[in-house]
Amino acid sequence: MDHDLDLHADGPALTAALVDVSSVSGEEGPLADAIERALRRLPHLAVTRHGNTLVARTGLGRKERVVLAGHIDTVPHAGNFPSQWDAERLRLTGVGTSDMKAGVAVQLRLAAALPEPNRDVTYVFYECEEVDVARNGLFLLSRDAPELLSADFAVLLEPSGGVVEGGCQGTLRAAITAAGARAHTARSWMGKNAIHDAAAILDILRNWEARRPVVDGLEFHEGLNAVAISGGVAGNVVPDECVVTVNYRFAPDRSAAEAESYIRELFAAWKVEILDCAPGAKPGLTAGPAAAFVKAVGGEPRAKLGWTDVARFAELGIPAVNYGPGISEIAHTPGEYVEAPPIVAAEHALTAWLTA
Amino acid sequence: MDHDLDLHADGPALTAALVDVSSVSGEEGPLADAIERALRRLPHLAVTRHGNTLVARTGLGRKERVVLAGHIDTVPHAGNFPSQWDAERLRLTGVGTSDMKAGVAVQLRLAAALPEPNRDVTYVFYECEEVDVARNGLFLLSRDAPELLSADFAVLLEPSGGVVEGGCQGTLRAAITAAGARAHTARSWMGKNAIHDAAAILDILRNWEARRPVVDGLEFHEGLNAVAISGGVAGNVVPDECVVTVNYRFAPDRSAAEAESYIRELFAAWKVEILDCAPGAKPGLTAGPAAAFVKAVGGEPRAKLGWTDVARFAELGIPAVNYGPGISEIAHTPGEYVEAPPIVAAEHALTAWLTA
Repeated sequence: MDHDLDLHADGPALTAALVDVSSVSGEEGPLADAIERALRRLPHLAVTRHGNTLVARTGLGRKERVVLAGHIDTVPHAGNFPSQWDAERLRLTGVGTSDMKAGVAVQLRLAAALPEPNRDVTYVFYECEEVDVARNGLFLLSRDAPELLSADFAVLLEPSGGVVEGGCQGTLRAAITAAGARAHTARSWMGKNAIHDAAAILDILRNWEARRPVVDGLEFHEGLNAVAISGGVAGNVVPDECVVTVNYRFAPDRSAAEAESYIRELFAAWKVEILDCAPGAKPGLTAGPAAAFVKAVGGEPRAKLGWTDVARFAELGIPAVNYGPGISEIAHTPGEYVEAPPIVAAEHALTAWLTA
Repeated sequence: MDHDLDLHADGPALTAALVDVSSVSGEEGPLADAIERALRRLPHLAVTRHGNTLVARTGLGRKERVVLAGHIDTVPHAGNFPSQWDAERLRLTGVGTSDMKAGVAVQLRLAAALPEPNRDVTYVFYECEEVDVARNGLFLLSRDAPELLSADFAVLLEPSGGVVEGGCQGTLRAAITAAGARAHTARSWMGKNAIHDAAAILDILRNWEARRPVVDGLEFHEGLNAVAISGGVAGNVVPDECVVTVNYRFAPDRSAAEAESYIRELFAAWKVEILDCAPGAKPGLTAGPAAAFVKAVGGEPRAKLGWTDVARFAELGIPAVNYGPGISEIAHTPGEYVEAPPIVAAEHALTAWLTA
């Protein structure tokens, strides 16, 4: 079935239309088709397709170019498809409403309404943000056609409650292994119980106090958690190994290398294996186009605690922020919803920024 | 291939012959056949077969009847089959040498050599001791034909280093569950980490002091160990559950019910599920036929710390001890061996007891 998107419908109505074209990660084809058709009808945009990722650019020769980016995929349905509109509470409920089809609706409305913005704009609609990074459309674009992402500043329309969220925290996972010696449990004193020894690892986690550093004026809040534990050989054997997997969410005043050193030192008494690590991104809201953006859209910026594709822009040397109408705390829940007024407000604020 | 056992070969040679008929649990058929043929050649014994379990009884009308029992299965081979004889060290190496074909050899030698013992004797050769209790030949016999096990006293020829080992400890396994609340690790303070909470369970285990009660004159030594731990939802989720499986080896001054109450009380702060529990057995060496046995074979009895089928005899109301030429500490290891002199010594001691 071909879906037709009406970019003149208001933001909440367009959000509902986008939600009602199912686009679980890996199955974005029909929605990408619909967005491509709508964009190609706009003569002021040059449209490129890369997989199920779409890039639409103005070419006005402005001094500054900005990216407005959003992913078009959602997590799997959870009895919350299609959308439902609550006219009394002005609330649209359904999968992907907040994360992040409301943001995509704002992107599309701006793309249609602003043929001559004061900055050149690159609109990016990308696939597979909710899954393995190797499938992430923004990652694939940055690898295969980075020139399409070239810009002075980027806004990710991820749900941020209509507030500018700056930077993002990094994330590191490590396996901490306690070693022991096997023995029959009937003579357990002949061995050394690795699970008992792992209590000392857990004690470090229990007693750990979170850093809350202020970076570029925003307060971050770190986290250090066991996310898995496993050990055991058989019901009558003293186990010789216990592995605790920890996830360290670190503020962007620490590099990935510093985060790794910190974890290795904290657990120096055990074998430490770093499983993966993605650096964070500093907010950088105090100067340049980011400062101008904050001034234009208003409100009090706050730190982004989760990891987002803002860090990918940072790696490309492009300052970026999160700013979108959705609510991040209810993303990925069966009751996910978005409220209509913030959709309209975000569109107004971005229009003001791009036309002032 | 049919195997022929020569019961006139000396104990170590007969042990080697028994080892060299493979009999991993569930595959005892050929060895049971060989033992059956050997026993049926002895006119003073009434032989009954039950699966791969054999019972051979004298019928002399003595005032007292004793059981000599041993299992004929072994754990799986570990590059240690067939047996190897070290003439210099008088040592036979191979799977099942100590646990417990040396004991089975002694049983068979006595069966052949003593047509008129001073006590009626029931020889039991049983299958599947090393696996799930539901397949254990002694259990099946006690369920299907308990009259064949009727006796005043029983000796299990399990490896005990040639020393009488009295009673056995009970064993209980329980799952202790720490509960929490899920949250994204980027905002971990919104949840409650169940793995961190499990540290308190492990602290109890680490700080636990083993009881060493003296029961019927023998010192036991308890053990309480985590034998498994598991928890974790995903690499970015604060986990809401962590399960610690513990194994409590308890001295026979505690009943199964008392052991269960003890564990429930020790971990009263958490959900406790009892997974299985087998009671121990008191030594009972201070009176009756057990005391006479200890006196006859000599040596200083000690407590049996592992769980053995002695407890099964105790459930049938039959006092029992472990007494055999093997070495329990090296059972189930690739280097398992038995020394020749203790095989001969055990045969002599039992002969003296049955002919005095």
